[in-house]
Amino acid sequence: MRMYDLIMKKRNGEELTTEEINYFIQEYTKGEIPDYQVSALMMAIYFQKMNKRETADLTKAMVDSGEIIDLSAIEGVKVDKHSTGGVGDTTTLILGPIVAAAGAPVAKMSGRGLGHTGGTIDKLESFEGFSVDMSVERFIQNVNEKKIAIGGQTANLAPADKKLYALRDVTATVDNMSLIASSIMSKKIASGADAIVLDVKTGSGAFMKNEDDAFALAKEMVDIGTHIGRNTIAVITDMDQPLGFAVGNALEVKEAIDTLKGKGPKDLTELCLTLGAHMLVLGEKANTVEEARRVLEEIIASGKGINKLKELVKAQGGNEEFVENPSLFPTASIVEPVLANEEGYVKGIKADDIGRAALVLGAGRETKESEIDLSVGIVLHKKIGDFVKKGEKVATIHANSVEKQKIATDMILDAYTIVKEKIEAKTLIKGIVTKDGINRF
Amino acid sequence: MRMYDLIMKKRNGEELTTEEINYFIQEYTKGEIPDYQVSALMMAIYFQKMNKRETADLTKAMVDSGEIIDLSAIEGVKVDKHSTGGVGDTTTLILGPIVAAAGAPVAKMSGRGLGHTGGTIDKLESFEGFSVDMSVERFIQNVNEKKIAIGGQTANLAPADKKLYALRDVTATVDNMSLIASSIMSKKIASGADAIVLDVKTGSGAFMKNEDDAFALAKEMVDIGTHIGRNTIAVITDMDQPLGFAVGNALEVKEAIDTLKGKGPKDLTELCLTLGAHMLVLGEKANTVEEARRVLEEIIASGKGINKLKELVKAQGGNEEFVENPSLFPTASIVEPVLANEEGYVKGIKADDIGRAALVLGAGRETKESEIDLSVGIVLHKKIGDFVKKGEKVATIHANSVEKQKIATDMILDAYTIVKEKIEAKTLIKGIVTKDGINRF
Repeated sequence: MRMYDLIMKKRNGEELTTEEINYFIQEYTKGEIPDYQVSALMMAIYFQKMNKRETADLTKAMVDSGEIIDLSAIEGVKVDKHSTGGVGDTTTLILGPIVAAAGAPVAKMSGRGLGHTGGTIDKLESFEGFSVDMSVERFIQNVNEKKIAIGGQTANLAPADKKLYALRDVTATVDNMSLIASSIMSKKIASGADAIVLDVKTGSGAFMKNEDDAFALAKEMVDIGTHIGRNTIAVITDMDQPLGFAVGNALEVKEAIDTLKGKGPKDLTELCLTLGAHMLVLGEKANTVEEARRVLEEIIASGKGINKLKELVKAQGGNEEFVENPSLFPTASIVEPVLANEEGYVKGIKADDIGRAALVLGAGRETKESEIDLSVGIVLHKKIGDFVKKGEKVATIHANSVEKQKIATDMILDAYTIVKEKIEAKTLIKGIVTKDGINRF
Repeated sequence: MRMYDLIMKKRNGEELTTEEINYFIQEYTKGEIPDYQVSALMMAIYFQKMNKRETADLTKAMVDSGEIIDLSAIEGVKVDKHSTGGVGDTTTLILGPIVAAAGAPVAKMSGRGLGHTGGTIDKLESFEGFSVDMSVERFIQNVNEKKIAIGGQTANLAPADKKLYALRDVTATVDNMSLIASSIMSKKIASGADAIVLDVKTGSGAFMKNEDDAFALAKEMVDIGTHIGRNTIAVITDMDQPLGFAVGNALEVKEAIDTLKGKGPKDLTELCLTLGAHMLVLGEKANTVEEARRVLEEIIASGKGINKLKELVKAQGGNEEFVENPSLFPTASIVEPVLANEEGYVKGIKADDIGRAALVLGAGRETKESEIDLSVGIVLHKKIGDFVKKGEKVATIHANSVEKQKIATDMILDAYTIVKEKIEAKTLIKGIVTKDGINRF
């Protein structure tokens, strides 16, 4: 088999066989195929596309290129959730406890990652003493006993995907649905998930700016899951403004606690109930989404959700007092409002810009080596559709530097679009994609 | 400027600016842009094409990437000829002398190259003592005094093209008219030509198997020449069977001598008169192609052509006695006929296969290090349209190994397609492409 022939075939619009895709991924991972042939193939795929079978084969080959986490010692159907990323997205901290409280195992391997704020692990480290360092045996035991554990991601998952993504990133070959979908799905499948609930974001703060693209990507991922034998569904959700009110690490954790206590932002609560309900159905803990949703509502109302968070924090060495007394979380030295300089209805909040303002404040990592400031961030007070008076607070900045606070203030004001005419609030859930088809709301 | 942005632009179907093309070629030549970005760009160009301006800019940038030969010390318009390659193509050895005899300067830089037979220099070295080693001053003096000199190609011409071609060759990005055309034209322009006559071959033995593709390539090259200010015309010619009868080095030289004496194969003679006539017009030694053709016919008939060859051979240290007494050329130890095993009309002669048979006999180079055997080769006796009886000679093999002679015999018989029904002889000249348009015959 020669890589040249694979490039030629795809260039000419032909299908690559399973053997050809396996050959390409195996040899590329080993360093036996040069980058310049792979980038040519990626560009050919950009133009000629891949069909469902090819996309699933590529995903499978990338899964097989590295370690595959074996979660078989955990009882029950392991359902994982993946979000395509946005701003102010605290769902894991809420979903984990409520889904675990409903009896479905939550065996979460998380990363720290780069972004506007830290990853789930960074956020959990806002709890004094919290740690993800534990043996695989302990991790599995915790999940079996408490239905939840959050581990650090140390395994070499889908190394082919890492190598391929880095190459695509510098050769303008990222924007292809099959390639994006296989990249995401390969990591999820290598993480040992039996079933997957996807939260595909769309809007100004999402990777998929366009709603049709978000549905198309969701469809690709669901098709891959189905093809590889992992029950997969995708919820398409709005990211035209940040989710919830808080953007930052400790600030988001406090918001998650509020939400688990039934006092969270409406959109964040709604998203967690929706995603959680689908997780319970795929995890065979409920027969219908409606039934599952009622179970989760009851878990929040009864305090079982917040108790599960305490249990998790304690089990991993954290101080669970923080849950009852959120003033214990690290706080910023400067807490200043951002005041509207005009009156009207909020038409848009550029989520990306709010994220960048949080990054400026020190909430996230620009490089792998960056130190995160857990205390800083932004709390929004106005969302799309809200009315705001001139001089009224639209947001509060939590900062540890006056200079950065000033920069963030300007960025936040720029992110808001305020108009005279009345604006409708945004619909959060845009639709659902299952193996049976696309359902737009 | 970032290479990433250039790839993205072209991927999205946009035009690259002159500055962008210059940047890409300059930095790639310096090794500042990695192969994997360039191969992605080449694949994007494969799908999105380049327009005339971009193609001319690419050609110019590749010319400027290395040395440019300065032929300004040679009097008159320097017209170069380029053939896209075929089997049994001895035109340079005939064209050079007749065009020079008509007063147009022939300053030919030739290579040795890889192929079924050697290059022009290898063939000329069949003349005992012939050498291309001479100073630039001497080369120019020879052209000014005798109107002809053949030099070896030592300059670093269009290094960007060499690098780019090597990359395209392994990434399935060769087949794009703009890229093929700019590759050929960059070398010709860097060689110092004022005007260019192109012989674009089409048919089974040519790079362009398809006649429409050959016309399209010719058009691209003529457009480049026109854009860069080099008068360029292209003649599209048949390569569905080898040109002339001889395939080999000394054998082709003998055929060239026959042709210069007016006793050459009809197709080879016709091609040389056509290409030569266009060279004389572009070289401003004749007003019309018809007038030029009459001049060249007279040059052959009067013996001025063959005398010019003698003059050339003598001027470069060769033994010009060979011209009058071709039996002096190196000869093979085995000269055996290939006999037809069926009766009928020749419908086709796979030129590629005849070329490979010559290569098996030792006439060409498979690698740069291969030694060429000047004496071996094939002389065909039957061409398309000819009638052949069972047991009649279709070709004669000149070999220095019985084993190779046997292999070549089978290859030659396989290359011939003989049918019962009468077959028309092939038309040699398919059309002309000038800056004013395409003229198909």
